[in-house]
Amino acid sequence: MFNCISIKGGVGAVEGFHCGATAAGLKPGGALDMAFIKADTLCDMGYIFTDNRFQAAPLRYVKERNITQTNCILINAKNANAMTGPEGVKDVGSVMEALQAKTGATNPIMSSTGVIGVPLPVEQIIAGLDGLDFTAKDGDGAAQAIMTTDSYPKQIAFEITLENGERFRIGAMAKGAGMIDPSMATMLCFIVTDAAIPAEKLTPLLQENAKTTFNAVSVDGDRSTNDSVFLLSSAKAAYDEEAFEFALHKVMEHLALQMVQDGEGAKKMVAFEISGAKDDAQAERAAKKLSNSLLVKTALFGEDPNWGRIASTIGSSGVECSEETLQIRFDNLLVYDRGQVYFDEAAEAKAAKVMRQEQFAVKCDLGLGEGAFTAYGCDLGYEYVKINADYRT
Amino acid sequence: MFNCISIKGGVGAVEGFHCGATAAGLKPGGALDMAFIKADTLCDMGYIFTDNRFQAAPLRYVKERNITQTNCILINAKNANAMTGPEGVKDVGSVMEALQAKTGATNPIMSSTGVIGVPLPVEQIIAGLDGLDFTAKDGDGAAQAIMTTDSYPKQIAFEITLENGERFRIGAMAKGAGMIDPSMATMLCFIVTDAAIPAEKLTPLLQENAKTTFNAVSVDGDRSTNDSVFLLSSAKAAYDEEAFEFALHKVMEHLALQMVQDGEGAKKMVAFEISGAKDDAQAERAAKKLSNSLLVKTALFGEDPNWGRIASTIGSSGVECSEETLQIRFDNLLVYDRGQVYFDEAAEAKAAKVMRQEQFAVKCDLGLGEGAFTAYGCDLGYEYVKINADYRT
Repeated sequence: MFNCISIKGGVGAVEGFHCGATAAGLKPGGALDMAFIKADTLCDMGYIFTDNRFQAAPLRYVKERNITQTNCILINAKNANAMTGPEGVKDVGSVMEALQAKTGATNPIMSSTGVIGVPLPVEQIIAGLDGLDFTAKDGDGAAQAIMTTDSYPKQIAFEITLENGERFRIGAMAKGAGMIDPSMATMLCFIVTDAAIPAEKLTPLLQENAKTTFNAVSVDGDRSTNDSVFLLSSAKAAYDEEAFEFALHKVMEHLALQMVQDGEGAKKMVAFEISGAKDDAQAERAAKKLSNSLLVKTALFGEDPNWGRIASTIGSSGVECSEETLQIRFDNLLVYDRGQVYFDEAAEAKAAKVMRQEQFAVKCDLGLGEGAFTAYGCDLGYEYVKINADYRT
Repeated sequence: MFNCISIKGGVGAVEGFHCGATAAGLKPGGALDMAFIKADTLCDMGYIFTDNRFQAAPLRYVKERNITQTNCILINAKNANAMTGPEGVKDVGSVMEALQAKTGATNPIMSSTGVIGVPLPVEQIIAGLDGLDFTAKDGDGAAQAIMTTDSYPKQIAFEITLENGERFRIGAMAKGAGMIDPSMATMLCFIVTDAAIPAEKLTPLLQENAKTTFNAVSVDGDRSTNDSVFLLSSAKAAYDEEAFEFALHKVMEHLALQMVQDGEGAKKMVAFEISGAKDDAQAERAAKKLSNSLLVKTALFGEDPNWGRIASTIGSSGVECSEETLQIRFDNLLVYDRGQVYFDEAAEAKAAKVMRQEQFAVKCDLGLGEGAFTAYGCDLGYEYVKINADYRT
């Protein structure tokens, strides 16, 4: 038994962690574009990095130095420092030296998002350090600074009270929008906690919970050069395995769903719930095929209850399925039931009404087994094309 | 040695084959919506059908009856007769009975494209038969009638003269646009010839040539419920293996490229040429990943020479690659060369100029082996969203 309540402040909500932001001139118009997270003590760190073959320089910096403990992360927008070769990693080193000189940080690391293939503006970023107040607790500013095509900042924090009255906190911020296959839209997530979680559990817990959260809103293997999830623990407070896993999942789920809802130009969030598959892997395959189908996405945008496209997409996903066992529902409205079509004018009007909601579910029961998975997707409309046709300019 | 010249007439260009169309009221405004191909003699038939699990009724009709010879194909637009259960197959039978009664055709078959999950309008189609002139050679009308979201009809024919002066012809028509992963936009193709090709070679030749033509413009396993390619041979004329394979490939390549160029709302056709991959399979994987990437497609639309997206997409394709061996070119303009970025303002202006063309190539040499593959793709703009947001309405 434990109690988990939502609190304000994001990363800054956790005792012993500071965060803030500045405008280093990377974004135009004086917008916040550099952020930091700094801990009072050296923290154990777990992380998941992109499986893209071209991992960005800041990721390679962490791996080359095998950094597993840190007390400072510097984050910049507008430049991914990816495809920048050995020079890119050296550039990270130069910035980290300046950061250490300024703050005395131990093993500071960096996280970047933005355009690929342009050298990191090292001098500009080092100059930007002067604008950071390393004693601040400005979660709002930090979450704002790391945004790229995001239309709103994403952060969350919880306080967990255990049965014995002991407490710990977990706070996080993330950036990412348009988790659309093949996405490449960079996803960054920073989670901090004072829970005394054993160091060796940090990365496995991230990996386990990513499956049903961040990986349910994008597709495995379709990662940008910079995608990263970090988990830092100061181990200063209480710990309970069940409570921590609950809270961590809630944090990751919340941020993943916020990314879908903030899909570039997207207006709707749709849960693609597959059940009755031969196994969970088949359910996952069908669900992700739906959430990533261009034709399904444009039908969502057009609020067109085109269940035929849903069926055809499942049929092409390579999973076992049959017309005689398949059921398709929009929320709870049954439109196709094992060979029977329930889609007269009245049903179509009802289905269209379901689709006019900002959130709804497309539920497909394959009727063959116990496999289930839910993937989340958004619609794709003119706005998406507009944002991505001239992202760099 | 042989001579292959382009001739007019499409399917109708081949002696002994008739074709034509009528307006059965399936499309609004009196547009042509039903077509036929009829041969004077019983023809051997090869075919490739979709690997979608929900194969449409007309495909199941052919397979259930194991039809390998026919002299008549009836084609309708606006209704796919898919997800229509055993009733759908019965409906095909009813139409075929009426067609037989009218024309005396042997093993007539049907091919449909349009909306999924709506019963075939059998009476309307049977009534439409009266509008067909089975002695016509109206390739233009037939190619027009089978269009759905296509913006122009697609047909081609060749006459091949062998060294000994003997001749044969091959003619074809197709429909399909927006071969975009996951496409589901139905692709139909009908090829007829009087070449005396051995019956057992028909299907294998289609399969072999589909790899570098129709399958290079969409993605294996991403097929609609109705995708079909038919090859009918009357065996009345000459035959030469090399000459026939040459002509068949030319026919299929031409129609496949026409489909890309007619991508729904697309303005550009781009060849994604991968070379230097570990093997051909890896090259194919990387090429198709590029041709199907939403972010690459929108960058094409925006005429934005965003080579970083190209690199990131290759990096996420799962093929072996390295920053130290990769080269990226827009046509012959080298922008990324094994760690070196050649992308100053002048290069960017040149790259943008390449992208303003209606056709160009994105060439990526992975620098690791001899594997090569070219996939074809189109841009994705507002028009695509518009067409697909309300396809049914």
